[in-house]
Amino acid sequence: MDYEVQLMPHCLLLICLFFSPLVFAAGPIANAGDIRVDGDRLNKTMQHMRNFGENAAGGSDRVAYSEHNLAALGYLAHLMAESGLVTKIDVAGNLVGRREGQIDGLAPIVTGSHIDTVPNGGHYDGIVGVMSAVEVARSLRDAGMALDHPLEVIVWSNEEGGKNGSRSFTGAVADREMALPSLGAKTIGDGIAFLGGDPQQLATNIRQPGNIAGYIELHVEQGAMLDREGIAIGVVEGIVGIKRWYITITGFANHAGTTPMDQRQDALYPAALIIAEVRKIITDEPGRQVGTVGRLEIKPGAPNVIPGEVMFSLEIRDLDMGKVNRLFARISAVATAIAAANGTHISFNQYYESPAAPTDKRLMALVKQSADALGLSNLAMPSGAGHDAQSMKDIAPLGMIFVPSKDGISHAPGEFTSPQQITNGANVLLQTVVAMDRLLR
Amino acid sequence: MDYEVQLMPHCLLLICLFFSPLVFAAGPIANAGDIRVDGDRLNKTMQHMRNFGENAAGGSDRVAYSEHNLAALGYLAHLMAESGLVTKIDVAGNLVGRREGQIDGLAPIVTGSHIDTVPNGGHYDGIVGVMSAVEVARSLRDAGMALDHPLEVIVWSNEEGGKNGSRSFTGAVADREMALPSLGAKTIGDGIAFLGGDPQQLATNIRQPGNIAGYIELHVEQGAMLDREGIAIGVVEGIVGIKRWYITITGFANHAGTTPMDQRQDALYPAALIIAEVRKIITDEPGRQVGTVGRLEIKPGAPNVIPGEVMFSLEIRDLDMGKVNRLFARISAVATAIAAANGTHISFNQYYESPAAPTDKRLMALVKQSADALGLSNLAMPSGAGHDAQSMKDIAPLGMIFVPSKDGISHAPGEFTSPQQITNGANVLLQTVVAMDRLLR
Repeated sequence: MDYEVQLMPHCLLLICLFFSPLVFAAGPIANAGDIRVDGDRLNKTMQHMRNFGENAAGGSDRVAYSEHNLAALGYLAHLMAESGLVTKIDVAGNLVGRREGQIDGLAPIVTGSHIDTVPNGGHYDGIVGVMSAVEVARSLRDAGMALDHPLEVIVWSNEEGGKNGSRSFTGAVADREMALPSLGAKTIGDGIAFLGGDPQQLATNIRQPGNIAGYIELHVEQGAMLDREGIAIGVVEGIVGIKRWYITITGFANHAGTTPMDQRQDALYPAALIIAEVRKIITDEPGRQVGTVGRLEIKPGAPNVIPGEVMFSLEIRDLDMGKVNRLFARISAVATAIAAANGTHISFNQYYESPAAPTDKRLMALVKQSADALGLSNLAMPSGAGHDAQSMKDIAPLGMIFVPSKDGISHAPGEFTSPQQITNGANVLLQTVVAMDRLLR
Repeated sequence: MDYEVQLMPHCLLLICLFFSPLVFAAGPIANAGDIRVDGDRLNKTMQHMRNFGENAAGGSDRVAYSEHNLAALGYLAHLMAESGLVTKIDVAGNLVGRREGQIDGLAPIVTGSHIDTVPNGGHYDGIVGVMSAVEVARSLRDAGMALDHPLEVIVWSNEEGGKNGSRSFTGAVADREMALPSLGAKTIGDGIAFLGGDPQQLATNIRQPGNIAGYIELHVEQGAMLDREGIAIGVVEGIVGIKRWYITITGFANHAGTTPMDQRQDALYPAALIIAEVRKIITDEPGRQVGTVGRLEIKPGAPNVIPGEVMFSLEIRDLDMGKVNRLFARISAVATAIAAANGTHISFNQYYESPAAPTDKRLMALVKQSADALGLSNLAMPSGAGHDAQSMKDIAPLGMIFVPSKDGISHAPGEFTSPQQITNGANVLLQTVVAMDRLLR
């Protein structure tokens, strides 16, 4: 019995080798397409990360620039060194692990994500991408697989509180941000210094187009698109652009008992009609655009007073900013007509814009090919949430890989992606890095 | 010239007398139908009341139980005494001025209103009814017109903050109300004592049916129905009943970027549809019912989070509580269907009810006849706002007279009713009191 148990794996291995066409192309080291991450090892590092900031509720309080954040970076620097990466903390507080490539002068392939969480956040958002990136470096080293390009694994600082780490690569971090509060107790400037960065020297972090060969990031989806459909891999089409407005309707506050229905300038009634129209217009054309009214405030806001003023937010997201603008134009036209028809005044104040960051079509194709080759179901999808990857949009070809997130729970202790799903994502990341190394040189 | 100027009014008077059919019915004292209030005197007392609490914004801060309130009662007690009324402060802090009637044992005809205002309120709400009631007593006395019934003019205490004064007549004031804050600095109990009442003895104020022959109150309309139509007098059909609910829709708060439109349980979208339906259902049948959504709160209330919970108020008012209930039944049925169709849960919590207080049909007829006889245009209309009069609904036949309020402005410094409009109202009040004296004995 013991003999059979020990023998069988070897038999299976021989059978696999015999039937695998890839074997015949293998050189002295493993064929690149056969390299796999060590899923157990990867998921053990995921578990270990809980030590840094897990709270009594089971959530993570590893907010940017906290002691937990710093301690976790220490652990990661250790893991990176074990994985053959030379580490440093850059001026923005990013932890960078680098392995040189075989061809001198090539720009690095960069992969990474973040380990900071929102207060009482989860253990997967960002962390999956970081731990998988380190595991990919380790697996390549263990397999004796050298890349032509340098490989950099970056743990971006303060993703949740402003993406200052990744944004420092484009010079987009304004001086005044250093004085802003972070999600923890420190200002952003003090936080960067706390991690070992130098907030005075952020400009030295700026990369020009060409300084990075390509950027690829693995992340948990933050909706439930993959989870609901039972699909293993999301081939990210881009990070959606976002525009936000505050819309204010001004009517006339009046006595709810003595003002006849036909003499009211109720600001809430047209607001309600407009909110219904937002849904209609957003869902009226095909695509994955989303539109949300998430905040609404009434003045004076008493049950026995007709609302005199209603202010509500409107957010529209899509990969195509033209579509965002077109949808807003339709909404604002309808809203203006509704407000006028009800004797009220309307105004629109756009207060936020984050441009769309489409992924590189070639990298999308590599992600899909990698997933296909691994036998993993996959789906092209937008990223509705923002990511460090979008900071790269003007300096490097960028790609993203999503893995499922149970019920789409995000920024909460209930975030969950299974060990197998994480391993799948890491293997796609590994194969994509290898393919990028061939494509981008 | 002087001679002509002095003569002309007498000539006009003679002509008027000659053509007036009423003259021929006059006895040794003035015919009751000919008695008129002194409009100038009345409007001077209206002006004088501004001395008690007018603020820099031109509004009135004469909140119940304040020093201003007490000082104004002192002035009114003086005016009442000048008008032939014997005054007292009752246990609830009401100022009562009484003139005995000619027939022993008859219950009094009561007329009055209130002089307390909301903070930064106006100079007409309540005050018109009080000053006119005193002027009516004075005019009757000056004309030598005796009533069979006693006449009581009552300045009800704390109308704006709970109608404790008038409610004490029905025993409806709960002990615990004494500890509640008033609109000023004092508790209601301390406020009553401050005015000279005795909060421990409120029960001695209770009247039984029959203790009051009839109650009539003049008040400014608080909408703009009379003002817009240019009508002098509102013949009040009753004080509407009110029901209020909080309606809560529970969906699921989720990421506004990553949650596709067809996977949302957005609590605001069905709320918007329901708010639109409220308007539709309320205006769908004839009548003067009103329905209002005046308060709305969203959780979590961020522009980038799909609303997980929306709570909003619903208020319905009508003279017919059956109609209020029927309208709510329609709204709740539609709302329940809308909530379900959008994957959300809905609950209804009725938290307030004020029953309708219809006016006495006979008193309505007297008000109309009085207005007609005075050549004043008039309109039957509900009172959408609450009044001290409604406290009388179970103990006395009640009537109300409205005068126009410019643009329906209420509870604000901009309240305005012209001197002529006030004089018109006071004359209708006078004639109605005289007619009640005949009808109710």
